[in-house]
Amino acid sequence: MTPTVPAYRRLSVEERRSQLLDAALSLFAHRAPEDVSLDDVAEAAGVSRPLVYRYFPGGKQQLYEAALRSAAEELRQCFDEPRQGPLLPRLSRALDRYLAFVDGHDTGFSALLQGGSVVETSRTTAIVDGVRRAAAEHILGHLGVRDPGPRLRMTVRMWITAVEAASLIWLDEDKQPEAGELRDWLVEQFVAVLSVTAARDPQTAALVGTLAGDGRD
Amino acid sequence: MTPTVPAYRRLSVEERRSQLLDAALSLFAHRAPEDVSLDDVAEAAGVSRPLVYRYFPGGKQQLYEAALRSAAEELRQCFDEPRQGPLLPRLSRALDRYLAFVDGHDTGFSALLQGGSVVETSRTTAIVDGVRRAAAEHILGHLGVRDPGPRLRMTVRMWITAVEAASLIWLDEDKQPEAGELRDWLVEQFVAVLSVTAARDPQTAALVGTLAGDGRD
Repeated sequence: MTPTVPAYRRLSVEERRSQLLDAALSLFAHRAPEDVSLDDVAEAAGVSRPLVYRYFPGGKQQLYEAALRSAAEELRQCFDEPRQGPLLPRLSRALDRYLAFVDGHDTGFSALLQGGSVVETSRTTAIVDGVRRAAAEHILGHLGVRDPGPRLRMTVRMWITAVEAASLIWLDEDKQPEAGELRDWLVEQFVAVLSVTAARDPQTAALVGTLAGDGRD
Repeated sequence: MTPTVPAYRRLSVEERRSQLLDAALSLFAHRAPEDVSLDDVAEAAGVSRPLVYRYFPGGKQQLYEAALRSAAEELRQCFDEPRQGPLLPRLSRALDRYLAFVDGHDTGFSALLQGGSVVETSRTTAIVDGVRRAAAEHILGHLGVRDPGPRLRMTVRMWITAVEAASLIWLDEDKQPEAGELRDWLVEQFVAVLSVTAARDPQTAALVGTLAGDGRD
């Protein structure tokens, strides 16, 4: 049909799907989900409208959920950090990747987390919650805690929520302070809240001891 | 119509409205909004179905939003604390009232904050955000800060989000630890994150100095 654009035909099903999701994500990054149509996605990806509908017969809701899942997967990869070396630099590197993700997805990230979108459902909420849960598991894994008690778990989850809030405020305030400073500040807050919990919880106290030891390496 | 139940007729419009909202709130407290019908509210309030429809012709959505607004108003009142005496005991008293509210509204509180409800709209999100904003204003007011800089504001808002997360986890974990301990722990976290910010921000540093002075009273 379009022999002058051979790339159009050569993509595999998976490649095409991922090309469409990339286009959708970059649209969702700068517009509210309700303002993105399947036609917009076709245009952004430079493909025909029927092609988009063939891949996403469920329409915008299906496309939105697929894009959300793909963003969630990308976010999970931010947390992927080898379990070696001192703990706080690992956390800093994960935060660097996370803040780069927030930076790149901008409005889409806010719309996603702040909810209130017309296409928000219990399914999309579950995807976002899944990322939060994955982040908590990652952190507890890095801390080397096999069986976290309720106080340590609550502290980690509260900090993750606070980081999320910080990212939204950061986007709102023209990305001030710059990412590196925000990252250090967040890491310091993590150590501070763990130290508070340490006074109430021996498991956390042991952990804070390890973190302090790391610092002396 | 029902002369044997004179109380039924004697309520003023405002009293009746508030009675219906109380009934709705207590239903929303234990069931997801989508599982509460206007008929359920009529039954819970002991009034006729048409009466409920007369007050809420917009149906469940209107009732839900009115109940949410009334809960938001109740929440705002939790923060209402005279501006005298040492700061941290003021914060403790506000947290006591807040945790009592969370305790009393239970499932309804979770459903509200976790979103994903079928009746969630940008209007309901705005009501919840309004409460968060009011909480931040209250805290900054108590701290005696007239013109809070971005670092102090971000710290306060992050802590408020963390408190919200803590309440949800608390409900999830059968209200453990007990409210008084949770309150003290949250206050300690507040002081800890402020201290971290103090190292980066002179305004916050001055504040932390005041808090430490309070402690010596």
